[in-house]
Amino acid sequence: MIVYGTNSVHEALRGPRSVSQIWATKRVAQRDWLDRHRPLVSLATSEEVEALCHSAEHQGICAQVAPYRYVPATQLLSVTQPVIVALDQIQDPQNFGAICRTAECARVTGVVIPKRRSAEVTPAVCRASAGAVEHLAIAQVENLANFLAEAKESGCWCYGTAAGASARYDTVDYREEGVVVVFGSEGSGLRPRVAQSCDQLISLPLCGKIESLNVSASAAIVIYEILRQKT
Amino acid sequence: MIVYGTNSVHEALRGPRSVSQIWATKRVAQRDWLDRHRPLVSLATSEEVEALCHSAEHQGICAQVAPYRYVPATQLLSVTQPVIVALDQIQDPQNFGAICRTAECARVTGVVIPKRRSAEVTPAVCRASAGAVEHLAIAQVENLANFLAEAKESGCWCYGTAAGASARYDTVDYREEGVVVVFGSEGSGLRPRVAQSCDQLISLPLCGKIESLNVSASAAIVIYEILRQKT
Repeated sequence: MIVYGTNSVHEALRGPRSVSQIWATKRVAQRDWLDRHRPLVSLATSEEVEALCHSAEHQGICAQVAPYRYVPATQLLSVTQPVIVALDQIQDPQNFGAICRTAECARVTGVVIPKRRSAEVTPAVCRASAGAVEHLAIAQVENLANFLAEAKESGCWCYGTAAGASARYDTVDYREEGVVVVFGSEGSGLRPRVAQSCDQLISLPLCGKIESLNVSASAAIVIYEILRQKT
Repeated sequence: MIVYGTNSVHEALRGPRSVSQIWATKRVAQRDWLDRHRPLVSLATSEEVEALCHSAEHQGICAQVAPYRYVPATQLLSVTQPVIVALDQIQDPQNFGAICRTAECARVTGVVIPKRRSAEVTPAVCRASAGAVEHLAIAQVENLANFLAEAKESGCWCYGTAAGASARYDTVDYREEGVVVVFGSEGSGLRPRVAQSCDQLISLPLCGKIESLNVSASAAIVIYEILRQKT
């Protein structure tokens, strides 16, 4: 996989993935953080970098890295009182990446995504997450509703975010148990079976004329409310 | 100005701006919310819509609308205990639009941006805000530091968000007075004179390896913390 953009490459070098080669423009190749990795760096023109990574968003650098390593979902549930973010069919790489960045900053235990009909950790997601995916535990599951059932069995409380749910996100006490919070896609929200698998549905107040928050904004608000309560 | 995308056009029709013409593909033209505006709608191919709005992100619809009407900054300060979001040189239209969307959902009094070196309300910002800018009061000011001084004189407390500030955003009491909260650009943060014009600097906890939240995530978290306290 070829990741691109300053943060994507920088965080790949700092994270567990092996990086086999880096292409950078003359200017970008001078960055301090590349010093320890000189043998990997080849100079390239901006056009060559773009041809390698197939994106104009490369900021003058891209790198060949090992495939992304997902973790088993059971690993996330083996932690004491985990905080897990589950995404139900979020297909937009920008939103998926943005949520990963916030989740990493709040040091959640991990993020769970379904294997099908969901954005995977592509180079675009790496870029949108500012490289955060490198330091984040992400698990792919066959079936999100089944995962929620397992999470409940292992002692987690599962919250689904749903417009119009009567419980406000900030009236809930997240401190006692492990927490899974599920976000749906902006268009369609949570699928019925996923919503039914949650212990409680929560909503964010909407006081204006617009009908919904962006899902990455919703996720930031709820994730930091959980962090606020837990610390 | 030609705005594009479903939400941009829909919210322009619901908001105060006059809309003089709409171009939509056959499929999009069938939407219910266009029914009351039939005389304005011309059918167009996807390519024609793209040629009109100069963006591939048009979702099959664009519209000719009146120029965006900014409000005077004094109007925001004339409100009792306003909640004002000020942006210091945020140049990315995605971030500016995303912050406007969250601000509208939280029903803030308004958003203040400097006239120079800042994203204006362009069609890309309308799209990124999901049309929220149509219902939001946005003021352009010559000088952000001077605006903060005026806000303080009128009884507001001004908070600047700055990485590493000793006060956590959630330890502050936002309930007593009017509030201005300032966000800087992701690259460089608040300019020194802007930071000095704030009564207090606040920070968001960063618990992972990534060095910063996206500014639109930070804004969502702080804006909803203010809303949480005030309601």
